[in-house]
Amino acid sequence: MSVKQWLYVQLVPEARASGISRLNLFIVAIVLASFLFLALETEPTLNTDPRWMRAFDVFNITVLGIFAVEYVARLWVAGLDPQFKGIGGRVKYVTRFYSIADLLAFAPELVVMALGGGGSLLVLRVLRLARLVKIARFVPAFDALGAALRRSSSQLLTSLAVALTLVYVAAVLLYFVEGVGGEHQEQFASIPRAIWWAVATLTTVGYGDVYPVTPLGRFFSAIIAIAGIGVVALPAGVFASAFSDELRERRERGPNP
Amino acid sequence: MSVKQWLYVQLVPEARASGISRLNLFIVAIVLASFLFLALETEPTLNTDPRWMRAFDVFNITVLGIFAVEYVARLWVAGLDPQFKGIGGRVKYVTRFYSIADLLAFAPELVVMALGGGGSLLVLRVLRLARLVKIARFVPAFDALGAALRRSSSQLLTSLAVALTLVYVAAVLLYFVEGVGGEHQEQFASIPRAIWWAVATLTTVGYGDVYPVTPLGRFFSAIIAIAGIGVVALPAGVFASAFSDELRERRERGPNP
Amino acid sequence: MSVKQWLYVQLVPEARASGISRLNLFIVAIVLASFLFLALETEPTLNTDPRWMRAFDVFNITVLGIFAVEYVARLWVAGLDPQFKGIGGRVKYVTRFYSIADLLAFAPELVVMALGGGGSLLVLRVLRLARLVKIARFVPAFDALGAALRRSSSQLLTSLAVALTLVYVAAVLLYFVEGVGGEHQEQFASIPRAIWWAVATLTTVGYGDVYPVTPLGRFFSAIIAIAGIGVVALPAGVFASAFSDELRERRERGPNP
Amino acid sequence: MSVKQWLYVQLVPEARASGISRLNLFIVAIVLASFLFLALETEPTLNTDPRWMRAFDVFNITVLGIFAVEYVARLWVAGLDPQFKGIGGRVKYVTRFYSIADLLAFAPELVVMALGGGGSLLVLRVLRLARLVKIARFVPAFDALGAALRRSSSQLLTSLAVALTLVYVAAVLLYFVEGVGGEHQEQFASIPRAIWWAVATLTTVGYGDVYPVTPLGRFFSAIIAIAGIGVVALPAGVFASAFSDELRERRERGPNP
Repeated sequence: MSVKQWLYVQLVPEARASGISRLNLFIVAIVLASFLFLALETEPTLNTDPRWMRAFDVFNITVLGIFAVEYVARLWVAGLDPQFKGIGGRVKYVTRFYSIADLLAFAPELVVMALGGGGSLLVLRVLRLARLVKIARFVPAFDALGAALRRSSSQLLTSLAVALTLVYVAAVLLYFVEGVGGEHQEQFASIPRAIWWAVATLTTVGYGDVYPVTPLGRFFSAIIAIAGIGVVALPAGVFASAFSDELRERRERGPNP
Repeated sequence: MSVKQWLYVQLVPEARASGISRLNLFIVAIVLASFLFLALETEPTLNTDPRWMRAFDVFNITVLGIFAVEYVARLWVAGLDPQFKGIGGRVKYVTRFYSIADLLAFAPELVVMALGGGGSLLVLRVLRLARLVKIARFVPAFDALGAALRRSSSQLLTSLAVALTLVYVAAVLLYFVEGVGGEHQEQFASIPRAIWWAVATLTTVGYGDVYPVTPLGRFFSAIIAIAGIGVVALPAGVFASAFSDELRERRERGPNP
Repeated sequence: MSVKQWLYVQLVPEARASGISRLNLFIVAIVLASFLFLALETEPTLNTDPRWMRAFDVFNITVLGIFAVEYVARLWVAGLDPQFKGIGGRVKYVTRFYSIADLLAFAPELVVMALGGGGSLLVLRVLRLARLVKIARFVPAFDALGAALRRSSSQLLTSLAVALTLVYVAAVLLYFVEGVGGEHQEQFASIPRAIWWAVATLTTVGYGDVYPVTPLGRFFSAIIAIAGIGVVALPAGVFASAFSDELRERRERGPNP
Repeated sequence: MSVKQWLYVQLVPEARASGISRLNLFIVAIVLASFLFLALETEPTLNTDPRWMRAFDVFNITVLGIFAVEYVARLWVAGLDPQFKGIGGRVKYVTRFYSIADLLAFAPELVVMALGGGGSLLVLRVLRLARLVKIARFVPAFDALGAALRRSSSQLLTSLAVALTLVYVAAVLLYFVEGVGGEHQEQFASIPRAIWWAVATLTTVGYGDVYPVTPLGRFFSAIIAIAGIGVVALPAGVFASAFSDELRERRERGPNP
């Protein structure tokens, strides 16, 4: 087996019957670590410390290098797949969704860095979210998500319409009771502000930054909460159950039917 | 095909086998936009700005005009339906629930505006919620809501009775522990106030404006929370499941059986 | 039909094939009103106002009178049921759970009032909760609750054990991270206090009176929240589903099998 | 029946067809009481009071003694089981997971106490959590937990990946809207801090220590809350349903198949 063939089996998930190769597992680990570092890099207590900043720089350059090498290697071995053979095949390969995400995951930052930019521009760092696609390839759930959305789309739309109507009507009601009448609370002084309250209440998040204070407002609020919680949870429940059905069906069909 | 016939097919949903016509889609979009504007209009940071106020006025007059034209057009083409033919048919048409809602959606505001009133009277703006009925006609879920209520009514009533009993008993208990005894908290100083706490806790909203502070109050509160959350969520769950069953059955029966 | 027979059919639910008689509906309404008044009576802004106090007194005396008359009437007509005939039967009738609750619902307060006591003693008012039993007789759900508890008892106990273990272990963990170490937060200074946090978090109530502030505490807290919410909701879910199954089975069996 | 045989039947759960012996019930009660005391011992308002401290000391020494006697007794009667007969059998017995937990539940504290240490060292008290294993032996649910984890592992992993991705992406979004832009809120000043908000919101705990204040932040937050709550509840739901299935199957199989 040539190096190219070995790399092909290591890099291309479709070349394996099941499971994930060691090289791809390593890439997944790098991506997860890069998300951890992306988070830490934004923390003021760390990114003002020269030692941490140095660690971030070393890590980022290493990761960009690994992804660049990975990209070139994937491009090289892609030729072993008949549909990506030759120049035409490679063009087809490079313009795939997955390949574009692979490129966005390192190229822009590398280019800016090479041009002398700090490589720490915020907008460039957001592009690192494209690395999610790198993992998505190995987690079957990521395309099960799409399938679940499609299979429940009509039910989802109707239940979403009902939930949003309830949020809107609840907000209008409390706007009149607490904002226009009542104690003229700042937080209920307009319908958009009351919508913020309605979402926080009906999803049961209840931050506590907004709540009715008049007896009448509390009375309506209590009725809305008891009656409405199930309705607002409906779209999420419909989607969760479609997703769960999709995963079960896939498991029953076996890994690669 | 005459203009009247074309308008009939465009305006009357029953004239189509399935889907929604372009004209009706436009009307739905107008209604949604009018709800967005109704919300924005109440926002103090916008409705004190002359440019926004002008935008609101232009939008409102346009929408009222569109709905007036729509109403007249619907009245005109209704004659193509045998049951609404002639004067008697039109009287029958005009007194339908849908037609009354269509009229309330624009007429009162238009009349007040014509008489020189600002058209911005609060109570008149609330009548715009009647426009929800305009959309309801095109979302099958809105009458599935009613069917779900009917099919689960007895289960719903019993589970609601149990939930409300739990809320009441929990409130009485905490009223004695925190309001009468304990730290004499203002927030637990009466049963109605304790009911507000019980609803916020048992629906898990938990704003944080009221909570027990004595060890005994926290002890009972913890037991009530762990044991009672499922019970208070019961009515919402019963309704959600009836609604979901109703939607699934309708989908299985096909669009127009 | 004699007055006694008419009263028997009106008062004893078992004498009817289904539904509820007008007299019993009136009694249910009185009980519900008395719960509303019991709540209002404790409200400081009302019970310091002489007019409201007078209204409360008039209402309470009226209700006590109605329940006294009802009790005597039930005792009289009970003789039409063979098992409660004669003196021996009446003794058996009077010592039933339902009859004792009926007596507790008015007698102690009436006696204290007759002896010149204010009738507003707190402990006496709590006895009014016995009136719940009066309604329970007409809501099939109240004994479905007991049946649901029995049918799911073993599942309920195991899931409760798992939930409480999780609450305890989460509390011990956060006690060490936030109370002993960390910022030495008052609110996490002992395991019982940390249990209060754990219950508020794992039931998703989240009042906001207690929350971790150190990065480590937030890290563990986030893991506990994501992993544990389903586990703590398990007992409530098990009971809710048993209750819902019980209600459905009863409906399928018909009203009076 | 010799004392050894009687003790064997009392101590070893496998020696009984079903249920739990009186001696083991007593040990479970002691363990539960020791968890209650472990909690109370950490409470500053109690552990600074000499009388409570004395009560804690007496209780702890008693419990340690009981567990020491129990350990020796279990070791003695273990010989009646052929696989633990003789010296070799006892070595096998002593190195079992359950026996190690039994030893950790009292030995370290007893040794430190004998050496003159106060026995109240924090780290030693944590070892008392090993006593959970003592109860786990009698609650079938504790090993049903492991079985539920195994049976749903692949579904659990995928749904967890989706949930964590949603938490991360929501945090990145709000970090930009509220932390970088907006009001430059301290609480959203880095991605890790925004993750704390995302977990509190998407699990619906909503402490209220962090929430968006800008209109744009609230807009995204509302969408994330309505759309995401079901997704983040998915892993917990998957596990809860696997646990519930496992319990039902075990019940259907009978106690000791």
